[in-house]
Amino acid sequence: MEIVKGFPSTMQDDYQLNVINIIKHGVRNFEKQQIVCKAGDRMFRYTYLDAYRRICRLAGALKKLGVEVGDRIGVMDWNSHRNFEMYYGIPGCGAVMVLMNLRLSPPDLSYVVNHSETKLVAVDETLLPLVEAIAPLCKTVKGYIVITDKPLSEVKTALRPLYSYEELLAAAPDDYDWPHMDEKSACAACYTTGTTGRPKGVYYSHRSTYLHAMAVGANGQLAPWDCWFQLVPMFHAMGWGGPYIVTMVGAKFVLPGMYNLARLDLLAELMIQEGVTMSAGAPALLMPMLEYIRKLDRKPDLSGARLLSGATEPPLGMMKDYLALTGAEIIHAYGATETSPMTSINRLKPWLKEQMSEEERWDLRRKQGYVVTGLDVALLDPAGQEVARDGKAVGEFCIRGPWITGSYYNPEGPILQFTEDGFWRSGDAGSMDSEGYLKITDRVKDIIKSGGEWISSVDMENALMSHPAVLEATVIGVRHPKWEERPLALVVLREEARGKTGKQDLLDHLGKAFAKWQLPDEMLFVDGFAKTSVGKTDKKILRVQYEGAYTKD
Amino acid sequence: MEIVKGFPSTMQDDYQLNVINIIKHGVRNFEKQQIVCKAGDRMFRYTYLDAYRRICRLAGALKKLGVEVGDRIGVMDWNSHRNFEMYYGIPGCGAVMVLMNLRLSPPDLSYVVNHSETKLVAVDETLLPLVEAIAPLCKTVKGYIVITDKPLSEVKTALRPLYSYEELLAAAPDDYDWPHMDEKSACAACYTTGTTGRPKGVYYSHRSTYLHAMAVGANGQLAPWDCWFQLVPMFHAMGWGGPYIVTMVGAKFVLPGMYNLARLDLLAELMIQEGVTMSAGAPALLMPMLEYIRKLDRKPDLSGARLLSGATEPPLGMMKDYLALTGAEIIHAYGATETSPMTSINRLKPWLKEQMSEEERWDLRRKQGYVVTGLDVALLDPAGQEVARDGKAVGEFCIRGPWITGSYYNPEGPILQFTEDGFWRSGDAGSMDSEGYLKITDRVKDIIKSGGEWISSVDMENALMSHPAVLEATVIGVRHPKWEERPLALVVLREEARGKTGKQDLLDHLGKAFAKWQLPDEMLFVDGFAKTSVGKTDKKILRVQYEGAYTKD
Repeated sequence: MEIVKGFPSTMQDDYQLNVINIIKHGVRNFEKQQIVCKAGDRMFRYTYLDAYRRICRLAGALKKLGVEVGDRIGVMDWNSHRNFEMYYGIPGCGAVMVLMNLRLSPPDLSYVVNHSETKLVAVDETLLPLVEAIAPLCKTVKGYIVITDKPLSEVKTALRPLYSYEELLAAAPDDYDWPHMDEKSACAACYTTGTTGRPKGVYYSHRSTYLHAMAVGANGQLAPWDCWFQLVPMFHAMGWGGPYIVTMVGAKFVLPGMYNLARLDLLAELMIQEGVTMSAGAPALLMPMLEYIRKLDRKPDLSGARLLSGATEPPLGMMKDYLALTGAEIIHAYGATETSPMTSINRLKPWLKEQMSEEERWDLRRKQGYVVTGLDVALLDPAGQEVARDGKAVGEFCIRGPWITGSYYNPEGPILQFTEDGFWRSGDAGSMDSEGYLKITDRVKDIIKSGGEWISSVDMENALMSHPAVLEATVIGVRHPKWEERPLALVVLREEARGKTGKQDLLDHLGKAFAKWQLPDEMLFVDGFAKTSVGKTDKKILRVQYEGAYTKD
Repeated sequence: MEIVKGFPSTMQDDYQLNVINIIKHGVRNFEKQQIVCKAGDRMFRYTYLDAYRRICRLAGALKKLGVEVGDRIGVMDWNSHRNFEMYYGIPGCGAVMVLMNLRLSPPDLSYVVNHSETKLVAVDETLLPLVEAIAPLCKTVKGYIVITDKPLSEVKTALRPLYSYEELLAAAPDDYDWPHMDEKSACAACYTTGTTGRPKGVYYSHRSTYLHAMAVGANGQLAPWDCWFQLVPMFHAMGWGGPYIVTMVGAKFVLPGMYNLARLDLLAELMIQEGVTMSAGAPALLMPMLEYIRKLDRKPDLSGARLLSGATEPPLGMMKDYLALTGAEIIHAYGATETSPMTSINRLKPWLKEQMSEEERWDLRRKQGYVVTGLDVALLDPAGQEVARDGKAVGEFCIRGPWITGSYYNPEGPILQFTEDGFWRSGDAGSMDSEGYLKITDRVKDIIKSGGEWISSVDMENALMSHPAVLEATVIGVRHPKWEERPLALVVLREEARGKTGKQDLLDHLGKAFAKWQLPDEMLFVDGFAKTSVGKTDKKILRVQYEGAYTKD
């Protein structure tokens, strides 16, 4: 992308977009705004100003420990108020906050620490075992900061040298002379964990973080009278930017602290108690919370709340029930670690209200939404050409923009995830309709590439499973001498249909939704097929198992 | 300000923030959104997509006319849909749009054209006389583009060479290969017109314009279901960024076209008809519009609307009546040409709702508001030290940030409007309360500098006029051998009070609100004092007239 210089401006174009300015301005404007964190059975409450003083103390303490501009500091914590402080204190003093995903396997976690050459690790006391397990492998770590309310002497761990977060802060001054950090410097890092290979490092810049926070604020119509619930873990895609967004707009911030996936009802309770109006979550969290709400005699009034839901397509019933029972709107949004993460958001464009029936509007809400202003989007076919934006043609969803990563830090092996003109390849395939709403249907690796065209395996599986005789079905791409790949369908019939329903019946059924050239050449009736440990169809295994199906003879 | 480089990020930090991306993304997402312009008795309506095609045509036409990256193109137009197109088409192709203020005197206007070395001038047919008057003085202009619905042959003007906006567009293709403009390049220029000296050029960058639009969107909670009314002239401080803000968020855009200051009722009618929810204006426009609404039998429902009001403090009665009669909220905001202009906005912080009585809240609404996140603010005393943020101490309001100018383009003589650390000096003086709300009370040049302290002339005038015997009063600073300046009060007594009320009575009255050292040394009872042509007290004249009052003996 050739950048063209024009006539010089007179503006302060060298004023840096960095997270220090977000917190400084936020506190100046909203020093009395509340930050609330669940701490066991009680609630910890303080104000932006209180938090800011501790953020200054943290920066001072890090400096005293020898932390220098550019150093990487690991953080392994729950969604706590101290984590909020680290979101500012670490990048504020010029270091990089490496967010350590507490769900990673020890080999991956130690890889992250070594790869980032992390110098210090801050860890919540409850998570010490995870850090202790990898400590012998972590070559660059020079010390550990334990996050606890106990005196350091009562903390049981062999990690050394060991510091107490609270004791460090207590000994530091509550003001700090922040450096003017260059906006293109890294402020935080998250590592993506694909199904294959080592975690890959995405190093967010101050600039990308700032612009992303502005974009979420603007697309969510956030205001000082909003209350953001930090539901998504702060080690996932920088917590959807929650800690930065709130202080930018002056909203109340609610943190769940340490939480138990088996007791998500407690999160629902917290959301209701604190008057949450905005949050970023996922169906896996929102569904159990809805269960709790369903059981309440008196339903909470959450009208006006916008609950962002990422990860997977939100179930229609979940969206409908949140609205009916509480007035809260579930808004599907899409993003990834590489994208900061806000990429698209599903808001109803005003003119669609009149053009669409209620059911059509609900159906629309299941899409990933439109790509927010600030980002370029391209749907590319296997040849790298843009496909039509007609809601049908399928392409790989690729994006480019100020809060999208342009590379991975020091990657192992060649990185194929970028197009020549700088778009990040998401690995997700789907369509875009004429209104710009994305619908992601497949992972590119699961899609069938036939004669330069793509066939969606997911769509075909859904079509097969909509036939009454089919219990379960999967469709994979199998190598083909002429067409590169062709679809192969594996079908488990319901017991009562066995011997009665045949291949032609199902092909006729598929023919209603698919072009002839898209139909599977072969359909095998099986008793079952390979699954992964979490119960998903294991297409990797199936592709190996059936790889010769179209090349045998 | 020393900028510190940290660890490198992996993000696309070179992706430019430019206005081309705003319109490209805006049209991708909201191609059906409406743009509406009043054109005489009828309404012109089209969509973002229609506008975008014409923007492409405009860029193509300019290129064909020989316009190159960096060229300056003058625009003299009403708030029209074609002006909207020029807001994108001119900077989009890499040129700088010089906004020509149609209220400027011919010498100032020709100065602007020559100073900016404007190459082409686009002018609405109705404004041809203004351009014809200065054309002989404009050395750099190579051609004129007339904006009209008529065939070019029917346009009566001697300006040559003459092009027709519509004919140029008709001959151009409706797609354009936009350059990736460097974000620090100028996209538009406005010239400030102080009371003294030549107009000074502020050249907005693509970056500053982009970030300002995001900030207005985020601080006004704008959404695709909003409707922005472009009330403020598009040649004033880049029209408060309206044309950029709407496409960024996908809002409807309503333009008043050519309007008559004597028929502001028509604007009120338009606002009601089109369902406006947001606008930027000033009391001078909002007051007559309110008059019209007052006379309506059936009051319009504008509830939820946020009408920004700049320029001067909005009268309390106006704010209350808008709310009572229409439900619209008048929001005072502050800015200047040098600040893009959004600097501060007066929104009620949620906790103040409970802490303040209704009357206190109304009083608060008259303040300039808090400085939006993204900008630094300092209130400096005459020695350049920050004053306390206690709602009392008075300082000059100085700001710094990504959408504040850092200089003037090619200025005449020394520029004293910047502090050493890069803050722009607004020339406005006032206080900031502990919640961050600004209250601007004086122009710095009208303030009285006494022994290193400042005394507000406006506050003292208001205090004097609150005495029942006083018809009119003004307070000026007069040179003093010891204290630099001391206040001198000029008082016109009401007829019935003459001979009854004396100096001591009024000093006692002032003593209730002012410290003893602040009281005027002298108070002169006069029959009247010098006024400017618009009826404001002419302090420049008065300062000359009384300059020897404290140094005579």
